Amino acid sequence: MNNFIYHIPTKVYFGENQITNISTEITNYGKRVLLTYGGGSIKKTGLYDKIIAQLKKANVEIFELANIAPNPRIDSVREGVKICKEHNVDVVLAVGGGSTIDASKFIAAGALVDHDPWDFFNSKQEPITKALPLLTVLTIAATGSEMDAGGVISNFETNEKLCRIEKPLLPKVSFLDPTITYSVSPYQTACGSADILSHIMEVYFNMSKGMYMLDSFMEILMKTIIKYTPIALKDPTNYEARANIMWASSWAINGFIDGGRAQEWSCHPIEHELSAFYDITHGHGLAIITPRFLEYCLDESTLPKYVDFAKNVFMVDNLTDPKEIANEGIKRLSDFFFKTCALKSQLSDLNIDDSKIAIMAKKACQNNVIHGFKPLNATAIERILTMCL
Amino acid sequence: MNNFIYHIPTKVYFGENQITNISTEITNYGKRVLLTYGGGSIKKTGLYDKIIAQLKKANVEIFELANIAPNPRIDSVREGVKICKEHNVDVVLAVGGGSTIDASKFIAAGALVDHDPWDFFNSKQEPITKALPLLTVLTIAATGSEMDAGGVISNFETNEKLCRIEKPLLPKVSFLDPTITYSVSPYQTACGSADILSHIMEVYFNMSKGMYMLDSFMEILMKTIIKYTPIALKDPTNYEARANIMWASSWAINGFIDGGRAQEWSCHPIEHELSAFYDITHGHGLAIITPRFLEYCLDESTLPKYVDFAKNVFMVDNLTDPKEIANEGIKRLSDFFFKTCALKSQLSDLNIDDSKIAIMAKKACQNNVIHGFKPLNATAIERILTMCL
Repeated sequence: MNNFIYHIPTKVYFGENQITNISTEITNYGKRVLLTYGGGSIKKTGLYDKIIAQLKKANVEIFELANIAPNPRIDSVREGVKICKEHNVDVVLAVGGGSTIDASKFIAAGALVDHDPWDFFNSKQEPITKALPLLTVLTIAATGSEMDAGGVISNFETNEKLCRIEKPLLPKVSFLDPTITYSVSPYQTACGSADILSHIMEVYFNMSKGMYMLDSFMEILMKTIIKYTPIALKDPTNYEARANIMWASSWAINGFIDGGRAQEWSCHPIEHELSAFYDITHGHGLAIITPRFLEYCLDESTLPKYVDFAKNVFMVDNLTDPKEIANEGIKRLSDFFFKTCALKSQLSDLNIDDSKIAIMAKKACQNNVIHGFKPLNATAIERILTMCL
Repeated sequence: MNNFIYHIPTKVYFGENQITNISTEITNYGKRVLLTYGGGSIKKTGLYDKIIAQLKKANVEIFELANIAPNPRIDSVREGVKICKEHNVDVVLAVGGGSTIDASKFIAAGALVDHDPWDFFNSKQEPITKALPLLTVLTIAATGSEMDAGGVISNFETNEKLCRIEKPLLPKVSFLDPTITYSVSPYQTACGSADILSHIMEVYFNMSKGMYMLDSFMEILMKTIIKYTPIALKDPTNYEARANIMWASSWAINGFIDGGRAQEWSCHPIEHELSAFYDITHGHGLAIITPRFLEYCLDESTLPKYVDFAKNVFMVDNLTDPKEIANEGIKRLSDFFFKTCALKSQLSDLNIDDSKIAIMAKKACQNNVIHGFKPLNATAIERILTMCL
């Protein structure tokens, strides 16, 4: 177990109707609130009205930024920053999934600096030492942005989708009500679960030793997603399923499972290129890439981890040959994504051909090497993407 | 899964030599430091000198309270409060196990009020709305006090050992270096592990439903303790064992596993009476009580939880009758405590007879009922304690 710092001061209200605490919490942070949200589904479900009622009860002034898109654009961030600066906003309240929350993080940071917020992401890498306080109401279990300090923003002018992680971006308070996710479609539920699984697997598949407690916890998180996703798909208002998935999603990426591992992630940077070039749903891209990535990385040195995965997550117990056990684990993961979750299994199903594979591979590793579970250069990534076609 | 609030802002530095960050962290909280510790083992191991070096490097003024005893006394708290008030102490640095940290929590709170600190515990139940910032350096994995907001203080004038949990008592920063626990004796290591297991079992054995993720995490925590305690007993400087036990101890009681369950604890209040009357080691008392408590509570309604416990924690897989499986789980737990950990199994081994069982039973439930896994009145507790004789 490597050395690490664990520090997640986010306060989480978990459970049905916990959003009734917004009125009390928001006043701890200010009187002028920027409310951010996505395409308007929160208006259809009635959540918007409930949020507005809470803010009126708190007697705060409300400004709004709507239409934050999936794979959120830097343009939305710029627009939010402008509102914050013009109206001296004190606090940002993000109501949505990872896209709305991620954009809101950089709105909160951008509001306190003079430069363009894309300078947080481009080669300038402007420092993020402070941000407006951010509160979140989660509407889909997927990215874990409600309890972590990172976010990903897309720039379609430059075909870039870039990530930044800085402590001041961590939400102060997050409201997690599983019933809010009852209205999430089967497709988005499946993509969310793929994203959650990927967050865990990016950490789980590594060569560190002596991590029994954390490795075992990761297996539990994966089993939680695998157990409850089919239930949520069949019975979208099953509280137990939605609650377990929602809480697992936060713990998949809030830093606890890392335990000091500094290994880079592999599948996420590759998928970010797909989303940057083709604007596909992030979780779907990960579902397609991950089994091929695992096939690519399987060799004598990495084999033991695959055996643990197959035995402890998918309970493979009818085989004896380690290589066969490993392959059975990959097969069951593929079956989970492409049969249980009914996600399309090939990039060609998403109208993606091989024309940009070379450029995406180079950008994913920044013309260098991803130092993940196995080192991946552009040639390796090209090979993995080709396996996905 | 019930509604809950999750909020643990404690910053944890985990790993070897992390105490080298004390000098930086302490200056975030003040210039006048009360250093608290126990019987002086930290002087023998050299830890004391390292701490002093850190404080000198930070250029802070140091005041000291030594000799905080196991089952810490209200007298130590009073003494610490006096030093804080006389010298306008800004911050408390506790170096020790649960006893030193618990006492330090109420020193930190008592320093900011005018009344006697025992009034936090007696029928006055004075409010705890603020406390001096508390930093901790953990020297034994056991109570979890380094990452929770509670503490237990004894008053041998009144034969009382009472608990109080309040948010302002939560440590600001805790330093967890597994190598510091290399010098913990086999007996104290065993008692620490019994305490950790009990913290988990007080939550795990309950009648709530739909807690798959958290129940599974509790099983992992228990398995972590059961796997690594024998290793730490045989090989006290095994980093992997000490590290996994140490991190599990914090997560056993920091609130994460509760997930909104409001059930009262059963074994701890019973053990607190034993320690209050006989000053025995807390973890040893818990090891003796817990298997008998489980025997007492086993019936048709509680049976499924015992089956989960036996199968998922002790991997009992050779039996089919649920009652037999349940009993095998209890037997393996007893074997862990009394064979693997070599703890004495009977109260009589600790020179405790039946003379005070009736009064202890009444005090444990405050002449009422403990609403835990099963409701326990004084008669029930008397029966459990008699099974321990």
